[in-house]
Amino acid sequence: MCPSKIPDGEQRGWIIPIGGAEDKENDPRILRRFVELCGGDQADIVVIPTASRLADTGSRYEKIFGELGAGKVTSIDFDTRRDTEEKSRLKRIEQASGVFFTGGNQLRITTLLGGTPVAKLIRVRNAHGVHVAGTSAGAAILSEHMIAFGEEGGSPMAGSVRLAPGLGLTNRFIIDQHFRQRDRLGRLATALAFNPFAVGIGLDEDTAAFIGPDNTLEVEGSGAVTVIDAAGLQFSSMDRVDEGEPVCLLGLSVHVLVHGATFNLHTRQASAGALVSPKEAG
Amino acid sequence: MCPSKIPDGEQRGWIIPIGGAEDKENDPRILRRFVELCGGDQADIVVIPTASRLADTGSRYEKIFGELGAGKVTSIDFDTRRDTEEKSRLKRIEQASGVFFTGGNQLRITTLLGGTPVAKLIRVRNAHGVHVAGTSAGAAILSEHMIAFGEEGGSPMAGSVRLAPGLGLTNRFIIDQHFRQRDRLGRLATALAFNPFAVGIGLDEDTAAFIGPDNTLEVEGSGAVTVIDAAGLQFSSMDRVDEGEPVCLLGLSVHVLVHGATFNLHTRQASAGALVSPKEAG
Repeated sequence: MCPSKIPDGEQRGWIIPIGGAEDKENDPRILRRFVELCGGDQADIVVIPTASRLADTGSRYEKIFGELGAGKVTSIDFDTRRDTEEKSRLKRIEQASGVFFTGGNQLRITTLLGGTPVAKLIRVRNAHGVHVAGTSAGAAILSEHMIAFGEEGGSPMAGSVRLAPGLGLTNRFIIDQHFRQRDRLGRLATALAFNPFAVGIGLDEDTAAFIGPDNTLEVEGSGAVTVIDAAGLQFSSMDRVDEGEPVCLLGLSVHVLVHGATFNLHTRQASAGALVSPKEAG
Repeated sequence: MCPSKIPDGEQRGWIIPIGGAEDKENDPRILRRFVELCGGDQADIVVIPTASRLADTGSRYEKIFGELGAGKVTSIDFDTRRDTEEKSRLKRIEQASGVFFTGGNQLRITTLLGGTPVAKLIRVRNAHGVHVAGTSAGAAILSEHMIAFGEEGGSPMAGSVRLAPGLGLTNRFIIDQHFRQRDRLGRLATALAFNPFAVGIGLDEDTAAFIGPDNTLEVEGSGAVTVIDAAGLQFSSMDRVDEGEPVCLLGLSVHVLVHGATFNLHTRQASAGALVSPKEAG
């Protein structure tokens, strides 16, 4: 599927992948920024806890977003594909100013929602300005191409990653989460080695990429966002390696961004942004 | 210390860092190439097992190199700094066509050999054409700046790495070993963030960088060599981050090389080398 067309005169909503384990109590800056983006006390947030197998995941986020001042929060779960056709749930999503996917298993989301009216509606609403965030598995599914699962390791290896179609809000990037914590550079680079058109985004825990309508990514949170840009790739051996063999990749460009830094997914320019004092920038 | 000056009309010996756990039995291609480089049946190899606390490390490599056809192999251990002044051991090193440092703890090598006649002699002999290899800890110590220890993790973090002076055969690179297996991209990038002049070389296990007199690195073995070139760095926040905070690094260039690929440490050009068929290259 392709991202929905953005109507003339409108702006796409923000897309906000979060690397998992975001701070929910002491300094929940990522979740707070999401609530503010969705309208603060006017925010109307739908939480989709379908990735999770824990019964209280949805209600937990309802409580957190409520405490952060969101005007209205509703958790909507989907247990079967038939659930995705239910009019009352679709209507509730249609009203929302923000949609939030919890963590869990990304294949739960895509197997239940893929190709359904819910998936289509969320793409359409995002194109109309509704903000869509997801944490961990909920982050992985936001893009067109999703890492379904893979192996740990710092250097790329054939067969170390399995891609699957995601929700498809955008096709500009491939997400990996828990990045620093679970050693995923190798599998993200392997994912890019198949076809270097997309930008790889590795999200540390408690770290989010707030991607605006102009496709500029801003980092929020306590960790780093590792951007792998393969557009300048000189060589990939992905077409000739066997399973378990290392992949040769020449000419990757890597940026490690922290809070305040930005990356433009369109021009592929990184900026230290607020990290640089006016004196240095001048 | 600086690398020894190469006498007019002579060539530096090869420098061969190995990522640890190199194959010693089934297909010992790295160790075999080292023996051949040192002269095959004319090879005269000194093994320095000082990094290891295991009693049989030296004799094990004596046996392996012997079976691979080396003419003469002697293991020389150093238990105290005073041992490094002993004339018979220095004379034995002076005769060798190759020196091999085993794995273990790199700080054992540097605390025992640093600043001694042995360290100086090995630098001088390398400048005169003697080949010097090391595996794991033995690889880490070959360069001027050495990673003494650090934390695992895919993205760089202040305080995640401690540098120390190494043996100093070259100052062109900083080595990290067990690269894929122990998730060390973050700490290698952190090491470069202090001062991007050096090239970061991340060696997977059973993988070696054969660095010739012309400073071209050739990959040998079953894994990958990840080259991090920070020469084009646009920004490093290393001067302003606190311990435990992520480091912002914009503009790293990364190449993942496998057997057959090369990297020129002087021009900083990567090449797929033998991986590309003549047809593709044309």
